[in-house]
Amino acid sequence: MAEKEKQIGITSKKDDDFSEWYTQVITKADLIDYSDVSGCYVLKPGAYILWERIQSFLDSKFKEKGVKNAYFPLLIPENYLNREADHVEGFSPEVAWVTETGNSKLPERLAIRPTSETIMYNHYAKWIRSWKDLPLKINQWCNIVRWEFNNPVPFLRSREFLWQEGHNVLATQKEMDEDVKEMLDVYAQCFEELLAIPVIKGMKSDKEKFAGADYTTSIETFMPAGKAIQCATSHALGQSFAKAFEISFTDQNEKVQTPWQDSWGFTTRSIGILIMYHSDDKGLVIPPKLAENKAVVVPIIFGDTKDKVNSEAKKLADELKEFNVILDDREDKTAGWKFNEWEMKGIPVRIEIGPKDIEKNQVVLVRRDTSEKLFVKREELNDKLSELLETMQSDLLENARKFMGSSTVEANSWEEVEQAIKDKKMIKMQWCCESECEDLMKDETGGAKTLNMPFGEKVKEGAKCTHCGKDAKAVVYLAKSY
Amino acid sequence: MAEKEKQIGITSKKDDDFSEWYTQVITKADLIDYSDVSGCYVLKPGAYILWERIQSFLDSKFKEKGVKNAYFPLLIPENYLNREADHVEGFSPEVAWVTETGNSKLPERLAIRPTSETIMYNHYAKWIRSWKDLPLKINQWCNIVRWEFNNPVPFLRSREFLWQEGHNVLATQKEMDEDVKEMLDVYAQCFEELLAIPVIKGMKSDKEKFAGADYTTSIETFMPAGKAIQCATSHALGQSFAKAFEISFTDQNEKVQTPWQDSWGFTTRSIGILIMYHSDDKGLVIPPKLAENKAVVVPIIFGDTKDKVNSEAKKLADELKEFNVILDDREDKTAGWKFNEWEMKGIPVRIEIGPKDIEKNQVVLVRRDTSEKLFVKREELNDKLSELLETMQSDLLENARKFMGSSTVEANSWEEVEQAIKDKKMIKMQWCCESECEDLMKDETGGAKTLNMPFGEKVKEGAKCTHCGKDAKAVVYLAKSY
Repeated sequence: MAEKEKQIGITSKKDDDFSEWYTQVITKADLIDYSDVSGCYVLKPGAYILWERIQSFLDSKFKEKGVKNAYFPLLIPENYLNREADHVEGFSPEVAWVTETGNSKLPERLAIRPTSETIMYNHYAKWIRSWKDLPLKINQWCNIVRWEFNNPVPFLRSREFLWQEGHNVLATQKEMDEDVKEMLDVYAQCFEELLAIPVIKGMKSDKEKFAGADYTTSIETFMPAGKAIQCATSHALGQSFAKAFEISFTDQNEKVQTPWQDSWGFTTRSIGILIMYHSDDKGLVIPPKLAENKAVVVPIIFGDTKDKVNSEAKKLADELKEFNVILDDREDKTAGWKFNEWEMKGIPVRIEIGPKDIEKNQVVLVRRDTSEKLFVKREELNDKLSELLETMQSDLLENARKFMGSSTVEANSWEEVEQAIKDKKMIKMQWCCESECEDLMKDETGGAKTLNMPFGEKVKEGAKCTHCGKDAKAVVYLAKSY
Repeated sequence: MAEKEKQIGITSKKDDDFSEWYTQVITKADLIDYSDVSGCYVLKPGAYILWERIQSFLDSKFKEKGVKNAYFPLLIPENYLNREADHVEGFSPEVAWVTETGNSKLPERLAIRPTSETIMYNHYAKWIRSWKDLPLKINQWCNIVRWEFNNPVPFLRSREFLWQEGHNVLATQKEMDEDVKEMLDVYAQCFEELLAIPVIKGMKSDKEKFAGADYTTSIETFMPAGKAIQCATSHALGQSFAKAFEISFTDQNEKVQTPWQDSWGFTTRSIGILIMYHSDDKGLVIPPKLAENKAVVVPIIFGDTKDKVNSEAKKLADELKEFNVILDDREDKTAGWKFNEWEMKGIPVRIEIGPKDIEKNQVVLVRRDTSEKLFVKREELNDKLSELLETMQSDLLENARKFMGSSTVEANSWEEVEQAIKDKKMIKMQWCCESECEDLMKDETGGAKTLNMPFGEKVKEGAKCTHCGKDAKAVVYLAKSY
């Protein structure tokens, strides 16, 4: 490998300097460009296609559940935000305000949406009249601005990001509770099936819930860098927004009722999590199901075999249309240069074909994640490639599950918790669920936060909080997190 | 029809009070809700699904042409806008400015993008180095804010709208010229094939071109209300932005060159044009190719046949899954009520089935645009429905073409022009192409503007401008317009 070829590769190691490694992956794999406005990033085509594929996965699941897409205005009058007290307190420190248009001052400041509960529910109040209008299930795909003052990290914490926000209205609390979990399940499916990332489904603590919600459910994961991250959330809003925005409906008995609401969101943060999870010192790794291009065909040219090999490579690429393969027949790059580039960009499988392979009626498949080489008979290529892609997809998830398992410490004492935090692990413990206890845990661990209280796990009878010794009310995950 | 049923219908006629008719269609067919911010509208699910289908049509054509999607920040530093002089002059009166975030004043105002040339090209300057980086073809689907102070009209003129903006960079002027036309052709295809609306492709006058462009091409149409409208534009930007943003590339001979650029946009305005074009006094008409749901099945219940008819209706709906049909088996609505509702919402075909139809082994198809009834044998339903949808699609376009033809006056004198404008027609005339002449024509006609100079039509030798009598340089369309 020539010196110049090395330099275009990633020069930091994931295990040595995670932050520098991440910056190099997102810039060198052509995912992100930094803009002149701090915290705002360009999603380059390599990143946007990942978002498109995530959108398409989620959108079809939403539609199966009877959700319809709509679009509400970007700009929200200040007085809307003020109507739900907890909500405005939570969001106003981060709002970007439009105060002037053309050469005129606006009479009332307009917020760029930090989330759309307030503007959507203002309209819902007009749309909902009777029980026949329920459930109302509406989603929008849009951009969001939250002017955070923490250190920005591309994808993970940016001042503008893309997301979908779903906002459902249900007749009863029970329906809301079920709906909240159903939408969370869709998110968990997207992470596990498409992104090959295992998640923990559970309930956020009171302190960590959405501003204005009755409760928040989340999916969380633990990443190779030794930090946890919230992947997506589904909020039970209860009736507080309905009351603030005067949403009501007439039930079957002609009685006026207040409905129950939920909201649920999934953002471009998911792309950051994906990169941090699966990528390696050679660059991006895209799970096959997520990848737009499943494979790249690289002809291996020696001396006078060029025409023959190129023509075979082209034939191969044509045969593999269903995999949306790339044919890299550039003449000004060496095969080695091409290998590096496509590894950097995360194409799941490389298909090599050279003069000897043609003689032997074979091709070489190389897996992006393991570098494993497979010699495959030409006539079996289609089937073998399918198989390999499936294996790679399930291996990625399996390995991630193993990593999650080995990163989880079931702590029986606070000392074990403190040691596990030092070891960059995630802790599973018994908890009293009190906010004061949560604050103290954070202080004493130098910043570890509760992730969520996993569904389906009950505290043992008589168990005590691993931190404060009071009666335990739930199992909780605790870790340092993004 | 009961009195109550009538009231939910449209109470204005398209020919009598076009503006009131339009307002009723967009609100009663569940397309639009008015927000509290003047000029900003909610796109309800009925409108958004049309946009999704338009997106999907255009996006696949763009991708065929090698265009990649990306996403650039919403907020643009003021100094970017100022770099191209014509551009800032054109857009600054309409910019919405963010000046505060949280509780802090920003050091520099940020513009909400009125269009993204400036921020995109700032990045292009970093991305483009050599001829190998060209052509660069990038598109983004996003929201746009232009704080116009003219009377807003939902879809047609709103302060926030959705669009796509494509921004290509080419090595030579010739490639740019071809590319500009190629992208305009995609837009024309979308209007004609999908929306069933005929358009005129041509060149905008100097006065009407995009701020900062060398020239602008457009597609234009003439609407039943007797006004023309610009449907979409594709701009040849030449080298002015490349120079302002210092975009350059090294050519095959190692010489540094300035590239050529174009930009092209298609907005939610298209939905307004669609509604105004095809819809009628019963409500929305959606061309079959555009419709998400091609048909609705309405069981016609008499006395004790309910179960039998409902079960047949359900069977029908299941058989017609590929048409994404709606089954309207609500029990609290009469068939008549349902007919009205689905006509209002523009479903292309209604499928009726009653006890007599079951006996005769037939169903009834009713076309939304003509109300024509077709009795169809059950076993032929699938084929006949396909045929009917195709016929309806081509008839809509054919009728629109006839209307455009009969609305066009080829004027040989200025008196004929003036009369035609009074008659709410579109004029085709010979023109000198001078801006002063254009201003005068506008004044003398009470506001008629040039639409475009159609491609492929040359002035006859020695022809004079129909308005001022100077030598004619082009054929031009002139009309009052939105």
